Amino acid sequence: MAIVSSPPSVTDVCRAAKHAARELAQADTERKDAALRAIAAALRARGEEIVQANEADVRAGREAGLSEALLDRLALDEERIEGIARAVEQIVALGDPVGEVIEGRKLPNGLDVRKVRAPLGVVAVVYEARPNVTIDAAALCVKSGNAIVLRGSSSAAHSNAVLAAIAAEAVVSEGLPEGCIGTIGSPTHPGAREELAELATLEGVVDLVIPRGGEGLKAALGAVATVPVMYAASGNCHVYVDAGADLQMAERIVLNAKTQRPGVCNAAETLLVHEAVADVFLPQIVSALAAAGVELRGDTYIHARASAHVREASDEDWETEYLAMTLAIKVVESVGEAIEHIARYGSGHSEAIVTRDTEAARAFQSAVDAACVYVNASTRFTDGGEFGMGAEIGNSTQKLHARGPIGLRELCTFKYLIEGDGHVRG
Amino acid sequence: MAIVSSPPSVTDVCRAAKHAARELAQADTERKDAALRAIAAALRARGEEIVQANEADVRAGREAGLSEALLDRLALDEERIEGIARAVEQIVALGDPVGEVIEGRKLPNGLDVRKVRAPLGVVAVVYEARPNVTIDAAALCVKSGNAIVLRGSSSAAHSNAVLAAIAAEAVVSEGLPEGCIGTIGSPTHPGAREELAELATLEGVVDLVIPRGGEGLKAALGAVATVPVMYAASGNCHVYVDAGADLQMAERIVLNAKTQRPGVCNAAETLLVHEAVADVFLPQIVSALAAAGVELRGDTYIHARASAHVREASDEDWETEYLAMTLAIKVVESVGEAIEHIARYGSGHSEAIVTRDTEAARAFQSAVDAACVYVNASTRFTDGGEFGMGAEIGNSTQKLHARGPIGLRELCTFKYLIEGDGHVRG
Repeated sequence: MAIVSSPPSVTDVCRAAKHAARELAQADTERKDAALRAIAAALRARGEEIVQANEADVRAGREAGLSEALLDRLALDEERIEGIARAVEQIVALGDPVGEVIEGRKLPNGLDVRKVRAPLGVVAVVYEARPNVTIDAAALCVKSGNAIVLRGSSSAAHSNAVLAAIAAEAVVSEGLPEGCIGTIGSPTHPGAREELAELATLEGVVDLVIPRGGEGLKAALGAVATVPVMYAASGNCHVYVDAGADLQMAERIVLNAKTQRPGVCNAAETLLVHEAVADVFLPQIVSALAAAGVELRGDTYIHARASAHVREASDEDWETEYLAMTLAIKVVESVGEAIEHIARYGSGHSEAIVTRDTEAARAFQSAVDAACVYVNASTRFTDGGEFGMGAEIGNSTQKLHARGPIGLRELCTFKYLIEGDGHVRG
Repeated sequence: MAIVSSPPSVTDVCRAAKHAARELAQADTERKDAALRAIAAALRARGEEIVQANEADVRAGREAGLSEALLDRLALDEERIEGIARAVEQIVALGDPVGEVIEGRKLPNGLDVRKVRAPLGVVAVVYEARPNVTIDAAALCVKSGNAIVLRGSSSAAHSNAVLAAIAAEAVVSEGLPEGCIGTIGSPTHPGAREELAELATLEGVVDLVIPRGGEGLKAALGAVATVPVMYAASGNCHVYVDAGADLQMAERIVLNAKTQRPGVCNAAETLLVHEAVADVFLPQIVSALAAAGVELRGDTYIHARASAHVREASDEDWETEYLAMTLAIKVVESVGEAIEHIARYGSGHSEAIVTRDTEAARAFQSAVDAACVYVNASTRFTDGGEFGMGAEIGNSTQKLHARGPIGLRELCTFKYLIEGDGHVRG
């Protein structure tokens, strides 16, 4: 008779991670990098096992009627596994954030004060669908000295279980502590909403929860969380073509921001055009976008002039993150009106101005309150990799702690190290 | 017949602050500093008015049976007002955090990326008793380009109303927008708990709430807040005297950390002593502390040897932030046991080791997870002013965003400014 033991509780997994985190925080770069290399090697060596587990998920997903797009996001083959392993090796190549001196000074009284980066402790990542997140997130946490607790989607439960087990065994084989890669939920216990609430209220144990998924997941977490949560962003991004724009450049940037990968958060959703260039630029950009297959929603002015290509926009269009080949267009009277529109409808992610006018560029960068504000470049560059920060675990539109790409440094806190020679306060 | 108009609602005040914040974020250093100087001048010019309002609060407090200590915290005279005005002038002398480049690089593709400090927007400060916080907090927010919403205690309502009005009028006189210093509650409407809930759920309007007060206030906020909250710390701080300590230095540091100002969060609450030096150091420190008037609670070892001066400690003593002339003492076997004790009982504020042994110092600084970790110095230095950061609005024991002193930089977020020349993503 087989004995089926129930999996450890959420609290047990998180407490084990907390215990491991204290040792992991002390691990030097060499040991952490060796652990990451061991993960990459194990992924390659155990590809067949991963593919088999993944097939069970894909089969179940097909039976449950998942769309082909979702099934494609879910599916793993040898090539995709190789891609995941390479991504781990790229994290090896990044600098270790732990111990970096952010600033330091010798005080007039002779005390040395250094502000030094340190791991947060236990980071929980709650994610949907794509199983590669299991490894990406684990590798970023190992490198930044954090224990991780993974809580994936039930639709990828078999794949995630194998991937997490491979990563956990690999890091232990290199001398990192048991428990530094923990999982909640398993193929037989995929995990319920109550587990999410348990996770999000473990104050003093879980140092940060990062949800990677839809608005439903974020709302569910927000309603119960008492531990810190860092929300990955939605992006209602704008490109503003100023009176002083180079219109050829503007066309390239608008096309890139909208069409290069429309389903991601840094793609443009609304185009704002200064009225001084509207009569020249609109026919040009409307026909270029239409030729690229973009559906357009314009304000009254634009709709009246290009009704063949442009549907009339409603107020809702200014608020919508289409994540699709659709773009709203509006004519504005000034850079000030563009800034106002973005303040009202933007989500604080990525905003761009195209202009040769330094005064307009300066006003836009100063007044627009967003994680990333571009002059003469596409919004699509908002990405840890593009910014030279390495891999990221998401993009934040919060203002506290991390704003923009959440990379290795953003997975850290800091502490002040103060050294004296018997200093006392007078 | 006098017409009594009800004060604007919490939401109205915060929305006005949000509107003002957008203009204030653009104000240059010169204009903000002129506004601060105008506040200092107005405080001096209107001292009599402030003292009169304050007398009404003190009278009401005395009738309500406030303790002499609380009445003293509440009371203002010309000298204290001069001190508040000088503190504002000290903030003028600090560097403007807005626009500081935190890091920057030119990417291989030629894009310029700069990470630049920017105001948070609207900061709400909820505070108890001391009316000087009204001006300190307002001045820090003006300098960091943030609008502030003040919500003081009803026991200081008259003083706070006059101080806030003086500050608000002064900044407007120097051209800063109306609404950038807002107040909730007034002598006739001192403000209820429902107002706190309204304030703490204004997502998208209030960017940060900072409670300055007791655990009751923090718990009340934590239970309802959906906007970010930065909690000022409680401090259960330790001094660990290592086997390798200079014992004369250790005595100086322990005395300073405990007795120089016992009522504050960076004062020491527990002394840990390595067993190798216990027989020599304990008689020395116990008699020095007793002579200084400190009540001692020792573990069994210490109690057995010095029962005349030392009461036996219970488990509760290790958890207690006395904020008084009381100190718990425990003997430990190693630096490792000291680290374990601090991990279990510390509040992550300020921890100190006294040692001449570099290996012990390094282990302690690396393993202790606290905002400030000291070697051979008193915990009493944890303070924005002492650290050369200027005035602070409190001390954070959170790990995200701000840890340790909350000064001008910690009242800021940042944004990435990216400049290209038609760059698109391939």
